[in-house]
Amino acid sequence: MDDRDALARFGSRVRKLREAHGLSQEELAEAAHLHRTYIGSVERGERNISLINIHRIARALRVPPGELLADEGEGESVEA
Amino acid sequence: MDDRDALARFGSRVRKLREAHGLSQEELAEAAHLHRTYIGSVERGERNISLINIHRIARALRVPPGELLADEGEGESVEA
Repeated sequence: MDDRDALARFGSRVRKLREAHGLSQEELAEAAHLHRTYIGSVERGERNISLINIHRIARALRVPPGELLADEGEGESVEA
Repeated sequence: MDDRDALARFGSRVRKLREAHGLSQEELAEAAHLHRTYIGSVERGERNISLINIHRIARALRVPPGELLADEGEGESVEA
């Protein structure tokens, strides 16, 4: 897995969990104290997100932060 | 857990795993394609490390990246 794949997989996971919680990007952004457009770019794998922001998103999604980086080989597709 | 705690816990975990592998900071840095002084500052919780570098360190330590963020309440102490 190369570096960009890591970002795309992370973003895909955030999107899945956000949607599973029935949250809009705006709602997640507000809960995580981040900007909506930032959440969008994270979900698209465009951001080399920092550890502090990983923790903020994890808290907002009520999952352990490590779960956002889990690599379970579930064959997750990465939507653009 | 506040943001700085998150960095300190991450750094503490990296240090423990590095030492468990019998690696020096220099050896880990080389394996992760990062600088030794950078590894030192990460271990001290001074860096808001990015996702790409989390993956590089995880690969070098041969652990899943999520494991570096695990929060198992093991009462990990954070050495300066």
